[in-house]
Amino acid sequence: MQIVILAGGVGGSKFALGVRHAYPAADLTVIGNTADDITMHGLRICPDLDTIMYALGAGGDPVRGWGRRDESWRVMEELGAYGVEPSWFALGDRDIGTHLVRTQMLTAGYPLSEVTAALCTRWLADKQLRLLPMSDDRVETHVTIADPNTPGQLRAVHFQEYWVRLHAQPDALAITLVGIETAAPAPGVLEAIEHADLILVAPSNPVVSIGPILAVPGLREALQRTPAPVVGFAGILGGSPVLGMAHRLLPAIGVEVDAAAVGLHYGARSAGGVLDAWAMDTADHASIEQVEQGGLRAVVTDLIMRDVQSTAAFVRYAIKSATS
Amino acid sequence: MQIVILAGGVGGSKFALGVRHAYPAADLTVIGNTADDITMHGLRICPDLDTIMYALGAGGDPVRGWGRRDESWRVMEELGAYGVEPSWFALGDRDIGTHLVRTQMLTAGYPLSEVTAALCTRWLADKQLRLLPMSDDRVETHVTIADPNTPGQLRAVHFQEYWVRLHAQPDALAITLVGIETAAPAPGVLEAIEHADLILVAPSNPVVSIGPILAVPGLREALQRTPAPVVGFAGILGGSPVLGMAHRLLPAIGVEVDAAAVGLHYGARSAGGVLDAWAMDTADHASIEQVEQGGLRAVVTDLIMRDVQSTAAFVRYAIKSATS
Repeated sequence: MQIVILAGGVGGSKFALGVRHAYPAADLTVIGNTADDITMHGLRICPDLDTIMYALGAGGDPVRGWGRRDESWRVMEELGAYGVEPSWFALGDRDIGTHLVRTQMLTAGYPLSEVTAALCTRWLADKQLRLLPMSDDRVETHVTIADPNTPGQLRAVHFQEYWVRLHAQPDALAITLVGIETAAPAPGVLEAIEHADLILVAPSNPVVSIGPILAVPGLREALQRTPAPVVGFAGILGGSPVLGMAHRLLPAIGVEVDAAAVGLHYGARSAGGVLDAWAMDTADHASIEQVEQGGLRAVVTDLIMRDVQSTAAFVRYAIKSATS
Repeated sequence: MQIVILAGGVGGSKFALGVRHAYPAADLTVIGNTADDITMHGLRICPDLDTIMYALGAGGDPVRGWGRRDESWRVMEELGAYGVEPSWFALGDRDIGTHLVRTQMLTAGYPLSEVTAALCTRWLADKQLRLLPMSDDRVETHVTIADPNTPGQLRAVHFQEYWVRLHAQPDALAITLVGIETAAPAPGVLEAIEHADLILVAPSNPVVSIGPILAVPGLREALQRTPAPVVGFAGILGGSPVLGMAHRLLPAIGVEVDAAAVGLHYGARSAGGVLDAWAMDTADHASIEQVEQGGLRAVVTDLIMRDVQSTAAFVRYAIKSATS
């Protein structure tokens, strides 16, 4: 079985681990968001791709949910001692090894998809696992906020600055995906969607993780065309995100902080959207009718990703319900 | 008092520490060799400048003689785990902090001298110490060896490859300072020499440390012109180098592995060279006459750099003898 997952970072990697546990014999292709990518201290960092790669390769920190297991922070301490900014983005020593290899290869002219494949020969060898960036082209999520220094003025900051430095505290007034119009799907992305037996949309941030993937020109059309069923999973449970701060970003795209609203935002393939079924938590069972009125098959189950087993259990249940 | 030291890395930094101990009230300018500099994994590394900077800033490893005190090697372990080459050049985690800042600044367009000054605000603050690269222009020492793979063919390798990877085992057939003809002295270098009260040539490698500094166009002339006395120190004691592998390189420039031969290779200012006096170890007292016939004042003392006190003692003695 060929399974394709569209995923962001922390939530997406937990979800992917659950899917692998649920379908150990399947070939798994994860299409990762790259609109969070950033260059820091001359290093090209792909937070979502790395989180997924480390998690699937058993090199990730299971508690923190991102970065490397058994990490240290010596290089960053040095940058701090030199007074070099930005100091708000945590860069672990082991993680920096990855960024050095990536930066070096990108500088040498390799596209991100080839760099990712090269890095994954270490992490995803012989595991029926494949990680693809959504695009080789640079796409960057900017968040428009009120400028704290100049009342009445707006200011756009990189998503990482909004998320990590500002802890998503200022209201997100608009989300701009810089470069998205001219981005092409990375090699293999459309083919994976076309030949999949099943496509899963992870319970990642709908605005800054799944949003950019779906916005890559051609990707939405491929999802609409594929013969595979497309099942989405809500990351909003009972009106609040389980992980992250999606509730700070959904208002910027005019979507309610509500599982059904997100499902209907993705939309039914029968109505020009990208999903066939939408899995919500039992906390949202009251929304079943609303979701089904939008043309989606609603699946309700316990969506808390407590551990890989519980995630695998809800994935299995949702897929069975959605495709029966 | 304004003292200028021409220096390489490990030996040069030990020597500079001794000079500072001997003349704590003096303003010390160290002109460091940059022909050993290399780019590894996208990081610009200046081994000699860093060794001096760390040593004078009390951040160096006193046992190893290079790199940072209390160093770790996590990033390098990662590069190894990715199978990335070259793996023969040791890059410590704390050291990488320095290289990231330097690479970032150089990429942004700052010349090496300004980058070095910026790094030194951390290490040499308020210490009457100044570290200048010999040049802002890229100069690279290449060593010609017999190609181990193709008998009868020659091959040029970067000095670091010859020194670190090949442990100076192949015979050095020629030394080429790529870029030296068009290199200019870094800002402040000629001025420091011109306004010095005393100039010291450290007992560093005459071929690949002091050699490149003296070969920067204009530098030799500045040394010949300065009113300050110029005192050189032999790194060859009793026919062998105390530190490093100068004996593997001197043959390539046709100089005997002998203290007097090195002194005469630098030459007396009165005879077109750069020195007034030449300090040799007591092991070489038999060479006094030979050195003085070359126009140099010979000073003989115990030149072993056991610790900062013993180095300070021989520096004081040599300077007193040379300038009395």
